[in-house]
Amino acid sequence: MLGNFAYCNPTKLYFGEESLQYLNTELPKYGKNVVLVYGGGSIKKNGIYDEVLEILNKNGKNVAEISGVMPNPTLEKLYEGVEIARNHKVDLLLAVGGGSVCDYSKAVSVSVHCDEDPWEKYYLKFEEPDCEIIPVGCVLTMVGTGSEMNAGAVITNHESRMKIGHVFADENIMPRFSILNPKYTLTLPHYQMVSGIYDIFNHICEQYFSGEDDNTSDYISEGLMKSLIHSSRIANKNDQDYEARSNIMWTATWALNTLVAKAKSTDWMVHMLGQAVGAHTDATHGMTLSAVSLPYYRYIMPYGLAKFKRFAVNVWDVDASGKTDEQAALEGLAAMESWMKELGLVMNLSELGATSDMVEEIADSTLVMDGGYKILDHNEIVKILRESL
Amino acid sequence: MLGNFAYCNPTKLYFGEESLQYLNTELPKYGKNVVLVYGGGSIKKNGIYDEVLEILNKNGKNVAEISGVMPNPTLEKLYEGVEIARNHKVDLLLAVGGGSVCDYSKAVSVSVHCDEDPWEKYYLKFEEPDCEIIPVGCVLTMVGTGSEMNAGAVITNHESRMKIGHVFADENIMPRFSILNPKYTLTLPHYQMVSGIYDIFNHICEQYFSGEDDNTSDYISEGLMKSLIHSSRIANKNDQDYEARSNIMWTATWALNTLVAKAKSTDWMVHMLGQAVGAHTDATHGMTLSAVSLPYYRYIMPYGLAKFKRFAVNVWDVDASGKTDEQAALEGLAAMESWMKELGLVMNLSELGATSDMVEEIADSTLVMDGGYKILDHNEIVKILRESL
Repeated sequence: MLGNFAYCNPTKLYFGEESLQYLNTELPKYGKNVVLVYGGGSIKKNGIYDEVLEILNKNGKNVAEISGVMPNPTLEKLYEGVEIARNHKVDLLLAVGGGSVCDYSKAVSVSVHCDEDPWEKYYLKFEEPDCEIIPVGCVLTMVGTGSEMNAGAVITNHESRMKIGHVFADENIMPRFSILNPKYTLTLPHYQMVSGIYDIFNHICEQYFSGEDDNTSDYISEGLMKSLIHSSRIANKNDQDYEARSNIMWTATWALNTLVAKAKSTDWMVHMLGQAVGAHTDATHGMTLSAVSLPYYRYIMPYGLAKFKRFAVNVWDVDASGKTDEQAALEGLAAMESWMKELGLVMNLSELGATSDMVEEIADSTLVMDGGYKILDHNEIVKILRESL
Repeated sequence: MLGNFAYCNPTKLYFGEESLQYLNTELPKYGKNVVLVYGGGSIKKNGIYDEVLEILNKNGKNVAEISGVMPNPTLEKLYEGVEIARNHKVDLLLAVGGGSVCDYSKAVSVSVHCDEDPWEKYYLKFEEPDCEIIPVGCVLTMVGTGSEMNAGAVITNHESRMKIGHVFADENIMPRFSILNPKYTLTLPHYQMVSGIYDIFNHICEQYFSGEDDNTSDYISEGLMKSLIHSSRIANKNDQDYEARSNIMWTATWALNTLVAKAKSTDWMVHMLGQAVGAHTDATHGMTLSAVSLPYYRYIMPYGLAKFKRFAVNVWDVDASGKTDEQAALEGLAAMESWMKELGLVMNLSELGATSDMVEEIADSTLVMDGGYKILDHNEIVKILRESL
């Protein structure tokens, strides 16, 4: 905790079974023209669409729609949505769905009044918007990405096979409000649930496995990881356990709303590997992360041994007495592996459709980050991907 | 994590050695008339006053002052400040000091445009403001209260011997921005530092020792407590250790900015006891808490045994194997007691000037809260106070 930093996260969260009613509190704050953004239509099956539309109508809103936002929102879809939002003279983008829908809405929000090409400006040059930003509200139906309380937006460009996330610096790009009803997550298939749980866990890891200083953020991360491991085991046995699912939902938000990264460098290499895999296979995000995680962590462990030992002791209750740091650290990763298998996560890339002859290409499109314990070169990435197959 | 709740904390925090310069970023957002609020003048000795005034002048502000805000701000002082702020047609209240100065500024902020008596409205009836609220900014020079990122404001009424804190519901009462420079805390006397550390620790305890459900907030609390214990030991040996002091500063903010109380009932009985003692002795806040804590926790332990056992294991690393829950829980409190003595905290009320014949009167003015493991009656309060003497 030595550096200089700013923290501001103004998103208003409404949490709980009764939270949707607070849409009535928020909507009057914005203009008449709302664009409702959603995915493949599951919200029509489970009734959320009808509930939201009724509230929008009751509040006298003029509603247009962007539907069919895919799990990895594409650049083409972004262009399409920007067009719809412009034509509707949008005052509020209301994202109803999971992280992809929320991410996508933020990408639309900074592009509606942008004169330049958003891919070029935000995803290749990583610039901040200098135009008006359309406010985003969110009704969250799936947990994992933390998108409901951050300024991140991942977009996939199929043409260049690049999946890039931009975490914007401006807190005005964070949703103005997010409605978190754990009940909405109960209809999610088990596979999606555990995939989301691993995504959450890995978000914390990405921020935890970096730095050697003494930092309160790492203690908060350990608390979040312990809560998540605890609740995930309950939810894995009974995915209708509201208490466990509500704790998972809340943990997901705090795992990636900038708090646990404060005054730290961060890693994000597992996400870079996973996103490269995602761009080539369109596999579920959390599973691309679980498949590459252990080969990656075992590879970098020697470069951040003290933190991996601390992880073993503080998160996995490994008894380190009489063990070398390396033994204790490996025992922590073994405990993590058991937990991952217990949840039924995908533990190798082959299961996701990646093949040996795709490795070089995936490695080529993997962005290399420099905040973790080891900056990887091409050969190291290839090695990790091969071990993940 | 079962209930319904809202979370919103829009305070912008600037943290670190370079953070004061961000006053230049914030000041242009507000009108010309600034009231600078501070305490006994230590900021004049250490140069912060001059630095702040220079920035205010550079930004063309018209500055009035409220000085001499005391450690337990009084109602008379509140009336005086409201008068100054009204006459100055205040646009921004800039609190430069510790929690008392920041609390006081918030109390002024909701009173300037209030037609009713603020003591009556906010502290006896616990009403929310229905008038315009003056924005508050804060330059924090002392840590402990968390006032820099919450909507709480404690005021003492000497006439009725009541010290009452109102945590307002409206997030607009939270400081709009707070500047947290750990360097400013390095000049604080050791006694004040450890008193602040215990205040922080107890804030977490007040929110942790309640409820029997499964809640992510408790895991975050455990992380914060572990970080604080760790850093406090370093700072106690060397109070010029910037890293330890910066972690303590950051922990203090997150210990009381509403996060770890979410979806929980909370206790706050140690604060009620301590505040009653404070109103009778004017003793340092943190020390009133440390003096009553262990008699209180040992008394309520049987009513929340599972949580006290968890506290022992997760916070104090007590090995519970082969022990009854009660043995493990008591061992946790004993570890806490050792730590408190190590810091040199005041462990009894006599040292603070409280005498046996004051006990009944202190008990009479102790507000009884109902969120903890046991609702105390008058005799129980008297018993705890006598054990604290």
